[in-house]
Amino acid sequence: MTINVLGYASTSARTPLVPYNFVRRNPRVDDVVIEILYCGICHTDLHYIQNDWGRSIYPLVPGHEIIGRVISVGSDVGRFKPKDIVGVGCMIDSCQNCSSCNQGLEQYCKEVPTFTYNSIDRRDKTPTFGGYSEKIIVNEKFVLLIPKDLDPKGAAPLLCAGITTWSPLRHWKIGKGSNVGVIGLGGLGHMALKLTKALGAEVTLFTRSPGKEQNAHKLGADNVVISTNIKQMDSVNNKFDLIIDTVPYTHELNSYIPLLSVNGTLVLVGFPGNLEPTLNTTPLIMGRRSVAGSDIGGIAETQELLDFCGKHGITADIEMVKIKDVNEAYKRMLESDVKYRFVIDMSSLKDKV
Amino acid sequence: MTINVLGYASTSARTPLVPYNFVRRNPRVDDVVIEILYCGICHTDLHYIQNDWGRSIYPLVPGHEIIGRVISVGSDVGRFKPKDIVGVGCMIDSCQNCSSCNQGLEQYCKEVPTFTYNSIDRRDKTPTFGGYSEKIIVNEKFVLLIPKDLDPKGAAPLLCAGITTWSPLRHWKIGKGSNVGVIGLGGLGHMALKLTKALGAEVTLFTRSPGKEQNAHKLGADNVVISTNIKQMDSVNNKFDLIIDTVPYTHELNSYIPLLSVNGTLVLVGFPGNLEPTLNTTPLIMGRRSVAGSDIGGIAETQELLDFCGKHGITADIEMVKIKDVNEAYKRMLESDVKYRFVIDMSSLKDKV
Repeated sequence: MTINVLGYASTSARTPLVPYNFVRRNPRVDDVVIEILYCGICHTDLHYIQNDWGRSIYPLVPGHEIIGRVISVGSDVGRFKPKDIVGVGCMIDSCQNCSSCNQGLEQYCKEVPTFTYNSIDRRDKTPTFGGYSEKIIVNEKFVLLIPKDLDPKGAAPLLCAGITTWSPLRHWKIGKGSNVGVIGLGGLGHMALKLTKALGAEVTLFTRSPGKEQNAHKLGADNVVISTNIKQMDSVNNKFDLIIDTVPYTHELNSYIPLLSVNGTLVLVGFPGNLEPTLNTTPLIMGRRSVAGSDIGGIAETQELLDFCGKHGITADIEMVKIKDVNEAYKRMLESDVKYRFVIDMSSLKDKV
Repeated sequence: MTINVLGYASTSARTPLVPYNFVRRNPRVDDVVIEILYCGICHTDLHYIQNDWGRSIYPLVPGHEIIGRVISVGSDVGRFKPKDIVGVGCMIDSCQNCSSCNQGLEQYCKEVPTFTYNSIDRRDKTPTFGGYSEKIIVNEKFVLLIPKDLDPKGAAPLLCAGITTWSPLRHWKIGKGSNVGVIGLGGLGHMALKLTKALGAEVTLFTRSPGKEQNAHKLGADNVVISTNIKQMDSVNNKFDLIIDTVPYTHELNSYIPLLSVNGTLVLVGFPGNLEPTLNTTPLIMGRRSVAGSDIGGIAETQELLDFCGKHGITADIEMVKIKDVNEAYKRMLESDVKYRFVIDMSSLKDKV
């Protein structure tokens, strides 16, 4: 039994997303079959659609911030039952046998995780298709339980934007007494503010443009620093245990390094590529500071985040869109014209276009 | 009472070191007066002599790997007595009141430590002069005790080359089961091999030039990788918890980052400046890897290193030189023609030139 599914796909780097009928693989005994309710729009989706990283496989169905309802489960599935509200993030499988997977760091699987889309299923070698579609079939180990009290629409972005900022907060042991900086106020940045605040730390937003102060404070920012204002930057010298850099394009880092405390870390979560201008090592050496990277988070850590958000009532600030408006949503995302994440109402797939 | 001292000084960026008579400040009640026996030659000495960093103050008496014998102590000094064999490293004072100093991280003093030379004494505002001289006067808190069984000549480089590699080994918790890489086989690199091995970790030397294998193994290297050989580099992918980069000039880092394990760190200890070519962040993100810097070490940590070396019988491999040959020694150092550190026999100051 295969499953016919309607979705939206990109068919080339230069054309808009269009409706696309495709077949999902046979459910296995350890699979969960999920009706997709909502799917967040991530900047990564656009990178893949446009083939920015040169590894896109078309037709490409994006989407890895998936919230859905369980339709059925395989005979070996123990953790889920029909009607459960569940989530699927960026990964749907991994080798589950390497030192990374054994530590719950499936995102750093030595044999590379199977991604939710634009990947090849490691078991049957079929292409994977993402959440801009009616249904998805996922191994239960990579399915997350959405806490009952959490609004499922606003929970969608937790699966990528949320976990991407949560993972470094946890790895670098942020809590009460910590000082955290967040660069950029987009999908990731606004989650970083909320989560850092909820962890009890002091949090400062860095932004290039004045005018975001009020919104930043509402989201949890204790301070807002205009990064082009040298005086303001100097005033937070040596302050931060961790700076989470969510900017999705290459940008200047050297003015941020002296703002780290001794032993502090600036962690890049948004930009894979060459640092331009180049990094100067002197302030790294003079304060045992680090520049690090971090990629999404492990499955157990994602469940931890969802449970934390359930407990603290944290969801993303979202704007709902219909699937037919997805191409327009990308344009607005590029202009930062969204507060702070688009989520597609997947029932709109049934709308007559 | 001031003390007249003969030393060797640089009088400008472009002239060789010459004999130089100067006056040391009055000893204070908490000072130790030290007759200098030996002083290591560090690459930093040459940077200051040549004004490479644009902050040299002439006349400049270099030297911060100092071994000496206590001549006298102030009335408040409790830890030292005449005839003790002692060491002085890169710092002779700090604010002793900031969060860094309070953690024993005087090297990262928020008000900048007072350096052994080319600095201004923070108490009486006199210039500081280094170890290429007969005597030095140092606050007892910044004087180190040299273990009895340690050869004092070979102990001199522990005060800078030794502690500069020891501090990251300790900070990143290297021990049995760890995998450490060392880039470069000079004064710092050869100490990094010895210390890493003595800590029980596996250690790999990276070098550009074949022919160093035998010496590297003698110094403790388990493996030697020729960094220009792509096959050899690939064979150690994902291996290292820590890579200590001792190279004192700008160089390519991107081929080393994938060699770090998940959560691994490459720490720069030798090169303050702009990274050329620029760093690519992708392998940082894809393995939560870090690029860090580290600067010498704190005073308590330096004593810990000396005690460790006393226990394990570790000293630097040195070549003794007379002070009149110091300018020649710099030339040879620049050609890597030393195994692995020059140490000046300071009694040669008395030689008739």
